[in-house]
Amino acid sequence: MPETIIKVDLTQSPYENDMVHNRWHPDIPMVAWVKPGEDFVIETYDWTGGFIKNNDSAEDVRDIDLSIVHFLSGPIGVEGAEPGDLLVVDLLDVGAKPESLWGFNGFFSKKNGGGFLTDHFPQAQKSIWDIEGMFTRSRHVPGVSFAGLIHPGLIGCLPDHKLLETWNRREVDFIATNPTRVPPLANPPFAATAHMGRLAGEAKATAAATGARTVPPREHGGNCDIKDLSRGSKIYFPVYVPGAGLSMGDLHFSQGDGEITFCGAIEMAGWLHLKVDIIKDGVAKYGIRNPIFKPSPITPNYRDYLIFEGISVDEWGGQHYLDVHVAYRQACLNAINYLTKFGYTPAQAYAILGTAPVQGHISGVVDIPNACATLWLPTEIFDFDINPGNAGPQKMITGDIDVPLAPDL
Amino acid sequence: MPETIIKVDLTQSPYENDMVHNRWHPDIPMVAWVKPGEDFVIETYDWTGGFIKNNDSAEDVRDIDLSIVHFLSGPIGVEGAEPGDLLVVDLLDVGAKPESLWGFNGFFSKKNGGGFLTDHFPQAQKSIWDIEGMFTRSRHVPGVSFAGLIHPGLIGCLPDHKLLETWNRREVDFIATNPTRVPPLANPPFAATAHMGRLAGEAKATAAATGARTVPPREHGGNCDIKDLSRGSKIYFPVYVPGAGLSMGDLHFSQGDGEITFCGAIEMAGWLHLKVDIIKDGVAKYGIRNPIFKPSPITPNYRDYLIFEGISVDEWGGQHYLDVHVAYRQACLNAINYLTKFGYTPAQAYAILGTAPVQGHISGVVDIPNACATLWLPTEIFDFDINPGNAGPQKMITGDIDVPLAPDL
Amino acid sequence: MPETIIKVDLTQSPYENDMVHNRWHPDIPMVAWVKPGEDFVIETYDWTGGFIKNNDSAEDVRDIDLSIVHFLSGPIGVEGAEPGDLLVVDLLDVGAKPESLWGFNGFFSKKNGGGFLTDHFPQAQKSIWDIEGMFTRSRHVPGVSFAGLIHPGLIGCLPDHKLLETWNRREVDFIATNPTRVPPLANPPFAATAHMGRLAGEAKATAAATGARTVPPREHGGNCDIKDLSRGSKIYFPVYVPGAGLSMGDLHFSQGDGEITFCGAIEMAGWLHLKVDIIKDGVAKYGIRNPIFKPSPITPNYRDYLIFEGISVDEWGGQHYLDVHVAYRQACLNAINYLTKFGYTPAQAYAILGTAPVQGHISGVVDIPNACATLWLPTEIFDFDINPGNAGPQKMITGDIDVPLAPDL
Amino acid sequence: MPETIIKVDLTQSPYENDMVHNRWHPDIPMVAWVKPGEDFVIETYDWTGGFIKNNDSAEDVRDIDLSIVHFLSGPIGVEGAEPGDLLVVDLLDVGAKPESLWGFNGFFSKKNGGGFLTDHFPQAQKSIWDIEGMFTRSRHVPGVSFAGLIHPGLIGCLPDHKLLETWNRREVDFIATNPTRVPPLANPPFAATAHMGRLAGEAKATAAATGARTVPPREHGGNCDIKDLSRGSKIYFPVYVPGAGLSMGDLHFSQGDGEITFCGAIEMAGWLHLKVDIIKDGVAKYGIRNPIFKPSPITPNYRDYLIFEGISVDEWGGQHYLDVHVAYRQACLNAINYLTKFGYTPAQAYAILGTAPVQGHISGVVDIPNACATLWLPTEIFDFDINPGNAGPQKMITGDIDVPLAPDL
Repeated sequence: MPETIIKVDLTQSPYENDMVHNRWHPDIPMVAWVKPGEDFVIETYDWTGGFIKNNDSAEDVRDIDLSIVHFLSGPIGVEGAEPGDLLVVDLLDVGAKPESLWGFNGFFSKKNGGGFLTDHFPQAQKSIWDIEGMFTRSRHVPGVSFAGLIHPGLIGCLPDHKLLETWNRREVDFIATNPTRVPPLANPPFAATAHMGRLAGEAKATAAATGARTVPPREHGGNCDIKDLSRGSKIYFPVYVPGAGLSMGDLHFSQGDGEITFCGAIEMAGWLHLKVDIIKDGVAKYGIRNPIFKPSPITPNYRDYLIFEGISVDEWGGQHYLDVHVAYRQACLNAINYLTKFGYTPAQAYAILGTAPVQGHISGVVDIPNACATLWLPTEIFDFDINPGNAGPQKMITGDIDVPLAPDL
Repeated sequence: MPETIIKVDLTQSPYENDMVHNRWHPDIPMVAWVKPGEDFVIETYDWTGGFIKNNDSAEDVRDIDLSIVHFLSGPIGVEGAEPGDLLVVDLLDVGAKPESLWGFNGFFSKKNGGGFLTDHFPQAQKSIWDIEGMFTRSRHVPGVSFAGLIHPGLIGCLPDHKLLETWNRREVDFIATNPTRVPPLANPPFAATAHMGRLAGEAKATAAATGARTVPPREHGGNCDIKDLSRGSKIYFPVYVPGAGLSMGDLHFSQGDGEITFCGAIEMAGWLHLKVDIIKDGVAKYGIRNPIFKPSPITPNYRDYLIFEGISVDEWGGQHYLDVHVAYRQACLNAINYLTKFGYTPAQAYAILGTAPVQGHISGVVDIPNACATLWLPTEIFDFDINPGNAGPQKMITGDIDVPLAPDL
Repeated sequence: MPETIIKVDLTQSPYENDMVHNRWHPDIPMVAWVKPGEDFVIETYDWTGGFIKNNDSAEDVRDIDLSIVHFLSGPIGVEGAEPGDLLVVDLLDVGAKPESLWGFNGFFSKKNGGGFLTDHFPQAQKSIWDIEGMFTRSRHVPGVSFAGLIHPGLIGCLPDHKLLETWNRREVDFIATNPTRVPPLANPPFAATAHMGRLAGEAKATAAATGARTVPPREHGGNCDIKDLSRGSKIYFPVYVPGAGLSMGDLHFSQGDGEITFCGAIEMAGWLHLKVDIIKDGVAKYGIRNPIFKPSPITPNYRDYLIFEGISVDEWGGQHYLDVHVAYRQACLNAINYLTKFGYTPAQAYAILGTAPVQGHISGVVDIPNACATLWLPTEIFDFDINPGNAGPQKMITGDIDVPLAPDL
Repeated sequence: MPETIIKVDLTQSPYENDMVHNRWHPDIPMVAWVKPGEDFVIETYDWTGGFIKNNDSAEDVRDIDLSIVHFLSGPIGVEGAEPGDLLVVDLLDVGAKPESLWGFNGFFSKKNGGGFLTDHFPQAQKSIWDIEGMFTRSRHVPGVSFAGLIHPGLIGCLPDHKLLETWNRREVDFIATNPTRVPPLANPPFAATAHMGRLAGEAKATAAATGARTVPPREHGGNCDIKDLSRGSKIYFPVYVPGAGLSMGDLHFSQGDGEITFCGAIEMAGWLHLKVDIIKDGVAKYGIRNPIFKPSPITPNYRDYLIFEGISVDEWGGQHYLDVHVAYRQACLNAINYLTKFGYTPAQAYAILGTAPVQGHISGVVDIPNACATLWLPTEIFDFDINPGNAGPQKMITGDIDVPLAPDL
């Protein structure tokens, strides 16, 4: 039985667990060391550290202080790893904590983080998804269930000081271009809620002042939210500091491409079973700038899709130049509108696109002025037939249930 | 044997074939009528109407007048189709013309259209791909071969006058925001090279003056360049004019997501075997704004991928806000750099990404400020192993061959 | 365009085409020579040489003289191929003759060949399947259509004299154990209907007297009827005679595992696009006794199956020892019975199992005394839902159409 | 968290656990009751109840008393289930016991059970496979690892008295046709080692005298050893007694089609997470004789196979009539011989075929006199390339390790 080198107690605040941190900084001390070739287990909190509850109110989604996220387990030192190496991580398995077989999905209030479709869903909403073995189903979104494509939303190695400075300068400068925007353009360092792991005293205060927020994906990987980086996959991470310092968290039971609901996928507390190895000097040998990975041999095999197209003309008629973000938003809005014909509320449809294994493809990015993006919705996840036909759509969903909403105060 | 209702002679100029057109306009007369439930065959030119030749010079790619594209076969009238209906099109099969078993891929000069990576590849280059049954291989790009995911890059129904006006106003206004840009923001109507099918005389002149260019994908579908809209798939198109007026062309033997090389995928002349049907009033019943489709049950099954990540920090360090276009460009540049370690020139690597069935996924679009996109490169298409390992990359490609380049004059 | 090195004229008797033969014998002269690395096209008759017609009567299936089959195109000489080499054959593509876009399926009378379920279907029956692009549908079997997994039922190299003698002795001795059995245990050489290609005169008579019948699969491959040896696959054949002598025919548009209807799959005339190469001394190097092959990267992706189990207790209660043949027959009978609940006649259900891409798995062969076999029926090929449910099966097929039957005379 | 309604303690003899039984008999009392729609967890012993150990000796495989198997957990009563209903079982998940992350594979001595290739491997041998997350690897079989396709080898409902009598009469009569055969034709009831669950006293003795052995698959399912009946699949079982009486065990981490090594797949102790439901009168409605099932949406996606053919001519030249058992044996022997060219011992190669997700297809069963079977070996499970090529096979396996063998005493 592999050793569990990081444990988390879901009844305890993550701030009290010194094997957890919520900022990126090279000075955060390793909490455990492993050898290349070893396999081991790590437990993690959900990304909010337990703030979001399994209930029927979205008030917690509305009220959360987003400066506290993400609670990561680590950093783990790998013996012999040096800057310039590639750290090879096998995600041997990932799962939910047995005492916590559920996850949440939600949309933040536009005033508190927003999300991909925040102009259409400006208020906080939340759905709860029960995990039944390899499958999930929600009491707030009837008529749909699917197999989990379980993955860590966030995983990567500690940056060195130089990389950290690059990040901070880049993002702080960017915020300065529109500092009052709601939601903001980016999140600067914020010491008040920083959890710097085993750093203490002055060293902690110093590091907390410049520790990079965990929200965006960056050169080291980090919060990539790639649904296919799932259990069974193999990842090659650039190493920046001696020992690598691998940290991870933000586990998802399932997510659609884009994580368009932002809060988030089906978010859960859980564990990862990992094996690590090293390719010496791999960064230069292979010309690696961002992590690369190989997919799992075991993934859900849904193959009957209904595919929605979107182009970079926005929902108000505005023309954008080869903008895939706008094009994918149109494809998502098209899919939501389609699903409402079967009785779903827009919020339920949005929750499905955020949680189910939908694919988002960059289909065309050169045909000026319009990008084309496609959203692939697996039809097999529905309890009824959603294909178009001569009879027209049947209202299979009665509308007496919806995703709980918490109005802004 | 199904009837071939539109024939093309590749030795003849497409301007001499009155069953072909290269602009979108509701007044273009139907060239043939079919009944719902019927299946039939249509032949098409390659998108340039034969301008690009099977040789080892990129001068034709450099010199092409892009105002002549795309040469489409149609429009086909479907009996009983009315505005508001959905036209259901089964792509029963698609193939190359037997006398023309090759295709081309290229990058335009930045002065003449450019492309996704035009800042990195500013000059015209061209590769030729031989079609051997279900597979292709290029004398300009050694060490790689793959099965074709054959599809029409461009297919859709005629717009009505109102929709046409929306397009023209939207795009002309957009061009006006930066009229001297190279490459341009969009392409306005251009009568000089318009081919309006069977329209003649004054009617032709009038329509040519406002006929929409065929370059961008739009509400009706059009030049979507979706690689998965392949033979065997089923598409639901909005109908705008009586009879629908279905036209198509721009056949691709294979393409990567994004068609990042712009000129283009593996471009070929060929034929389509189609069946059409109608869902009455389907646009309103299903809330359709853009076409939707279902994938083919027969597609290449490559599943061992090497996946490259990109984030919306550009190659010069610039920060962009959740910009998937920038993120995908980084993923592409990362993959190109990786492939050069095995001996490919950057141009060869770029050509592989434009032609092979690579997937481009919108992985994360909410984690401010960085979008995350992934490029999935199937490893099985290479004659050698491209996976990372302790031994480092082997230079399997000797570098004595490259993709022909034609310098700007 | 690859050269067509063997042509067939479907309006001509195959006996008049000297590039065709219907027996295996080392003395049959090569009809064409190709070089390793070359690709070329071969045309073939359907296995009966045109005897079975596209009509609504099964009399031809009842009356056929089975000693005439199979009409093979070849043998093709490969320069440099010697006994002990492996001949590598790439099936670049396979298709139907454009002037003959249909195929047939049938069950022989028990008196004339029978078939897997001849005790249940003792009379001749026939269904016609129309080929519509990549798909097929039958006017005799409503409610079902599927993509073709096109393949040659029969392909292999000429035996040498020693191997031929082994075959003849083995099978003649076997017939002698029960010479009056109906259907027979095997088919001995039969000169009267032999077509020995370009052999003539005495040489022909001598060879015809001992030429092996083409019915069974043997060491060289031959009539394996493996549905997955489809277009796009790569096969490694043992070579027995100088030049290899590759012959093939018996094209199938689609077939279920087992080819249980015997007459046969969806049988058609067509063409193959091939490329050949040689692995010198490959038989000994790799210890090859029978051909081996790699599957195509392009195949139908049906994945939602209803799976029927069968065990080696026969339909009359008899116990058999680990007999997979009996077990698979039970699985087939179970599937047929199930399909009748939706309105199909047993003959229609049998035809579906013979033609659609059903899988037959050897599931357990060690749990004495019962083997377990499974039949995988893809649910997606039906126009309606065949899954079990609380509502019970709906009679979607009205029963006014059946597979034509020709009573024994 | 679902309730675990049957627990097993691996340190305790299964004979001491009254929620376990090793015979089929209608009188075995239910050990727990569940409601339709409920999900719950069941733990199981490995099929030998812990007799086979994680060590490097095959003596336990040689010495085991096979009359003790299989130790099943159950029977479970389902409220409302009546004879003639279909019991719908969702295998929500299946896994190994966390304290026992390993499994065994072996071949029995020909004197004690034998196996599919017992004439070639007449002595007891054993390999141990470590479970690392979703993957497995063996210290006795280097160079190969694969993802688990976890499944219960044995699952089914209690027979009623009439069905039990049919079984006993059928098999006892069969044994009588050759009572001294080694291995035997079948296994008769055997009271001495019977574990009848909660039956006690005279009732136990009576039932033990006629309780059917658990070895063969039968009408109710039972020991089908179908690798694809894996976690995530849905099964429809005929119900024979009030409450159904569902029992299961014999968990496999992975198995090849046929379970040709007999002892067995990768055998392990573990748990199942199940949900049950009922289709009233489903047996008659759907004409069900044996269980039917639908595959899991999550399974290993290996798709690059090397496929070996076998025909029904045995390894000594003997001719058999359409015998799939013989044909599959030849395909297996061909694959074993091929793998030895890369350095594997025959026993290691045999162990790979018994444990890895190889497919066994019934390819042709009508071409008299030869059946054709194919064995599909996934190439991706090997650490090196096993495809044929001009360079010939490389001896990647050095031969200093083998599968432990215990000679007959």
